[in-house]
Amino acid sequence: MSEFKNRGFLLKQRAFLKLYIYKTIDKHKGYASQYLGDLRKEFKQYGYEPTHTETYKVLHELTRDGLVKRERQIKGEKGVDFQEIILYSLTDEGKKEYDLYKKQMKVELERCRGLLDKALEDHYGPVR
Amino acid sequence: MSEFKNRGFLLKQRAFLKLYIYKTIDKHKGYASQYLGDLRKEFKQYGYEPTHTETYKVLHELTRDGLVKRERQIKGEKGVDFQEIILYSLTDEGKKEYDLYKKQMKVELERCRGLLDKALEDHYGPVR
Repeated sequence: MSEFKNRGFLLKQRAFLKLYIYKTIDKHKGYASQYLGDLRKEFKQYGYEPTHTETYKVLHELTRDGLVKRERQIKGEKGVDFQEIILYSLTDEGKKEYDLYKKQMKVELERCRGLLDKALEDHYGPVR
Repeated sequence: MSEFKNRGFLLKQRAFLKLYIYKTIDKHKGYASQYLGDLRKEFKQYGYEPTHTETYKVLHELTRDGLVKRERQIKGEKGVDFQEIILYSLTDEGKKEYDLYKKQMKVELERCRGLLDKALEDHYGPVR
């Protein structure tokens, strides 16, 4: 749980992205640039653009720890638009870890929301 | 507004502390270790301990930019428990900047809360 070591103030981007990446991989196999594109679309209205580096680091860590497996697939016809892509999916161990992580992150997200609510209340009056 | 340059994900600790430090100095003159102690007490239940470094950096920046002025004061009797302390107070320019900063931070804090609410909803269902 290295994501929590530095906790204290608000959670780190990587911990946040990891939760989304777990969820996405759990729902369907996909490849990295697809995940990144989807996340960027989703957070655009919040002025947040998930970084390439952080997204790939999460995928790398999950793979290294045996929680996610990689599978090579050929996209396009041989010779024509031939492209090899790497698909990600959760391992059995990964599914267990995802459940655990999700529970821990609920506590952490709520703690952070509490901190922001407190600040909003302290400076701008009661939060609706 | 260097605090916002790196924005995108959640706000930086320094931006958050700056808002509290502005408010505290505006309310009453005080000295640095007092501010830090008060902030630590206030955030203890949120598992957040404002760092010495970030708090002093905010005070240093505000002083450097002429928004806060420093005043030396002698604490204790001369010869007995003699101690020189630095009291901080807002300059007129600092009061104007505080107003502006407070407005900007409202938008930023609400944006961040939106991001956390979205995550809570995406992973754990509708937020109460």
